[in-house]
Amino acid sequence: MAADAVETALCSGKSLTNRPKNFARSPSLHAHLKSLNSTDSNRSALLFSVIPHLLNAVSEVSKALRNSQEVSLAGTANSFGDDQLNVDVVAEDLIRASLAQCPAVRMASSEEDPVERPVSSVVSATSMSEEQYTVAFDPLDGSSIIAPNWTVGTIVGIWDDGGSALGLSPAKQQIAAVLGVYGPRTTAIVAVRFPGTEGSCFEVGLTETGCEIVRPDIKLSSSSSQVKTKYFAPANLRAAAEDERYMRLVSHYIANKYTLRYSGGLVPDVVHALVKGHGIYLSPVTGASKAKLRRLYELCPLALIVECAGGKAIDPMDGTDILDKEVANCDERGGLICGTAEEVDFARGVLLGEDQG
Amino acid sequence: MAADAVETALCSGKSLTNRPKNFARSPSLHAHLKSLNSTDSNRSALLFSVIPHLLNAVSEVSKALRNSQEVSLAGTANSFGDDQLNVDVVAEDLIRASLAQCPAVRMASSEEDPVERPVSSVVSATSMSEEQYTVAFDPLDGSSIIAPNWTVGTIVGIWDDGGSALGLSPAKQQIAAVLGVYGPRTTAIVAVRFPGTEGSCFEVGLTETGCEIVRPDIKLSSSSSQVKTKYFAPANLRAAAEDERYMRLVSHYIANKYTLRYSGGLVPDVVHALVKGHGIYLSPVTGASKAKLRRLYELCPLALIVECAGGKAIDPMDGTDILDKEVANCDERGGLICGTAEEVDFARGVLLGEDQG
Repeated sequence: MAADAVETALCSGKSLTNRPKNFARSPSLHAHLKSLNSTDSNRSALLFSVIPHLLNAVSEVSKALRNSQEVSLAGTANSFGDDQLNVDVVAEDLIRASLAQCPAVRMASSEEDPVERPVSSVVSATSMSEEQYTVAFDPLDGSSIIAPNWTVGTIVGIWDDGGSALGLSPAKQQIAAVLGVYGPRTTAIVAVRFPGTEGSCFEVGLTETGCEIVRPDIKLSSSSSQVKTKYFAPANLRAAAEDERYMRLVSHYIANKYTLRYSGGLVPDVVHALVKGHGIYLSPVTGASKAKLRRLYELCPLALIVECAGGKAIDPMDGTDILDKEVANCDERGGLICGTAEEVDFARGVLLGEDQG
Repeated sequence: MAADAVETALCSGKSLTNRPKNFARSPSLHAHLKSLNSTDSNRSALLFSVIPHLLNAVSEVSKALRNSQEVSLAGTANSFGDDQLNVDVVAEDLIRASLAQCPAVRMASSEEDPVERPVSSVVSATSMSEEQYTVAFDPLDGSSIIAPNWTVGTIVGIWDDGGSALGLSPAKQQIAAVLGVYGPRTTAIVAVRFPGTEGSCFEVGLTETGCEIVRPDIKLSSSSSQVKTKYFAPANLRAAAEDERYMRLVSHYIANKYTLRYSGGLVPDVVHALVKGHGIYLSPVTGASKAKLRRLYELCPLALIVECAGGKAIDPMDGTDILDKEVANCDERGGLICGTAEEVDFARGVLLGEDQG
């Protein structure tokens, strides 16, 4: 089925074998996605097939998590017998099953299976899309905080090429990203940026009966002086024990009465800033602490989300934008400073010693 | 119905108008609660009516939260029209409805309605229990982190007196506490301590079809040297800007490479330590920052939970145990240091200047 037909069918609610349950008929989601369609090129498959299917996958992952009490005991003795679930694998399978419903998704890789492979579409050959995408995802980020039942998330990046995400320009060719947020509710942050546009970032709320646009236009405040409360999230704070610049930066936030919110989950920590409209997330790379965030599965999608919300996301090693450098291989790692643009600039100055120059 | 009859009926799965759906038939919960029954006094109503009904209320609150996407916009323009929910009020109502099913609960008050009032039982007069309790609860703690979809919780304390919780000995007469944890899953931490016993702390997992004991015996490590990772959660870190002792304590944790986990939600922050088996939570009271945690609705139930897990919970003002002092009125406030006993002792030493002789 051509992308145009998918869009028309989704809009009308007409039965489609590859239509994600509940999501196609959401008028607010559909209208919002429609408003984003590019004037220069048709993006129907991305907007009306890939993104809705990914939101559906987020909803399915949330259901699997809710009924997986045994995950809290992963790696320990299991009171439930032999049926201990690996929720990472469950999330991986649910997302891959959703991607298989999207003819436009040609290649995919994930943090659990970091090799780009063709996606075997379960949709008939006549559904072949003119659009072709490669998807890179981290199915379930935040393993250390699953046991205490803290909010965790899914990270997805969508690249405008059906062959590979590697070697492309992240700034221009990673054109969409989705964050699934599994907390008391199930929510998702979506960013879309077509070439030559500023991009858009919005929040979707997923309930048992469908989904709604909760925040149609997420924007980080352009200046910290405009906000009532300033937030900071210092990852790998242990590194501050051996890094005078990071310690100085943390002391700056305390002295200036920033509010600390740090869950240790990359998705909830970045989403906190987006929803509050202000925040700085820091995961510096120091002599004692290696870069550990994956560029393809974590850094690039998060950077697109933050940029589309008007913020910045930079590499703490050299201060360049995360999206400036191609991803050469699936396992590439890095650090991250992201959030309110003004805060990112200040942190870069301190961490790179530019403020002393 | 007498408590004995309630217990017998719950055990057999026999129909009872006031039996909480799904929970009465959980063999693991029932067996665990039965193992806790006091040899000195009959606590059937507490164990087989009050605690299961409260767990049922936690389950109901979680369902209400999951379908309340609009809560993220509380206090802001509401895209859902006029039906904006106040989830605090919804949680309050659900918990009060559960308490009304428990003839043994005679009085109740909450952070939302902080006046002790008789509970109007919906159960017939013949159900009158010999046991009589007063319940104090915070229906939904963590309002600042509801919008970004971070884990939040419910806090409940159960006092062994049908007239009032005020003026009693918290250490002896607050005999049970329940924490509801609303995250990707729904879980609850329960503590029970009958007079003359050491007490017990366990975790329950609540799914759509029932509940299971996940951790039958929660224990904080007795010594920090036994654990691989040490955690700290510094609340009100802004206060460290003006309090040299708090700043020194935070610097100690960084220098000694403790892992930071601080969500800003009292329930998830304390539960993190309980589930990980180590942690220190600090909410000091300094010159610039007033005591803000409510003794009746927050501090006393949390202190019982932590003590039953082998930890300590003290008042940072004078270093005494939270449970040593009677609660004189419903609005009394205080600070909190709680967690691994050895860590609490160290923090007390620094904050009260005891380490300087």
